[in-house]
Amino acid sequence: MAKRSVRNDQKERIRREAAQLFARNGYHGTGVQALSEAVGLGRGALYHHIGSKEALFEEVSRRPVQEMIAVGEAIVAEPGSAEERIGLLCRAQMRTLADHQAEWTLFQRDAMMIRGEVRERIFATRARFEAIWRQLLEEGVASGEFRRLDAVALKGILGMHNYAYLWLDPRGRLTPEEIGDIFCDVMLHGIRAPAR
Amino acid sequence: MAKRSVRNDQKERIRREAAQLFARNGYHGTGVQALSEAVGLGRGALYHHIGSKEALFEEVSRRPVQEMIAVGEAIVAEPGSAEERIGLLCRAQMRTLADHQAEWTLFQRDAMMIRGEVRERIFATRARFEAIWRQLLEEGVASGEFRRLDAVALKGILGMHNYAYLWLDPRGRLTPEEIGDIFCDVMLHGIRAPAR
Repeated sequence: MAKRSVRNDQKERIRREAAQLFARNGYHGTGVQALSEAVGLGRGALYHHIGSKEALFEEVSRRPVQEMIAVGEAIVAEPGSAEERIGLLCRAQMRTLADHQAEWTLFQRDAMMIRGEVRERIFATRARFEAIWRQLLEEGVASGEFRRLDAVALKGILGMHNYAYLWLDPRGRLTPEEIGDIFCDVMLHGIRAPAR
Repeated sequence: MAKRSVRNDQKERIRREAAQLFARNGYHGTGVQALSEAVGLGRGALYHHIGSKEALFEEVSRRPVQEMIAVGEAIVAEPGSAEERIGLLCRAQMRTLADHQAEWTLFQRDAMMIRGEVRERIFATRARFEAIWRQLLEEGVASGEFRRLDAVALKGILGMHNYAYLWLDPRGRLTPEEIGDIFCDVMLHGIRAPAR
């Protein structure tokens, strides 16, 4: 058990270092040699842990979004208005993004620069996350809380949040939750049904 | 003059091919060899035209944003309410992004993966573009059209539009202008002063 745990710690450390390096220099700008130096392991030992650079990239970039999907699905299942649950989703998304900014960057930025099955799986993960937002927006339209907007409005709402990988400062003036509340304020005014 | 024009055509062709390659494989994933093959020039001839890969990247990624800054400054200078001019800016931004999607992708995505002066100049260009949006938002607050929101709301509004580099389909169901109108509809409802 102890041995297993050491191995997991090692793997976690490799993931963290890799996410930082990939985010800093890009997937294509990060060689196995640089990864190997950053984690202080020889190439053989590194490959033993990671399988391949591409497999490591996939794992690192999908993980926070998979966690966010679990959080989002729990929020969707909660009682409360669509508006209240969207408020929770905004906050949770900004928090996850702040806690895993490097990984979120890879998911948004670098995934489109790779090809094949890894890219397909990353895009499928993104589609699952979008589906959570879509469901809450549709529930809000069904309940009369929201206006019916063209589907492309969802892309704009996702963009408000996701684009933060580029500028978010985790030690900035506002907490991720405060930023989520401000985005939500702008966005909810924009989608609310006029009768309210 | 004819010789000069041929040279400019050649340069324009190199820029177009480079933007596509950089967007497809990332700045770091695009070698001079691949650029050289794409444009059908030897490395020597290519370097003669471009100076360096980094110089080419800077030129390609900044150009549409510099054009957009000129368009945006003209919109700011027009008569009309802040709301009307923001409507024009939304449309113009989505049109520019659609017409130069590869270049806009590089500006948003790859610029943060490079270092040094080129990155500084690209970030300064981004700041100039943001300043146009900020000015219109502030004019709208001053005229009583808009609520006063935290400055971070601007990041969300920019994100709505800029994030489109990731998903915009130039042959999609909606024109860039229609998408701009929908974003503007959501966003203007969100920022309008309650008295209106």
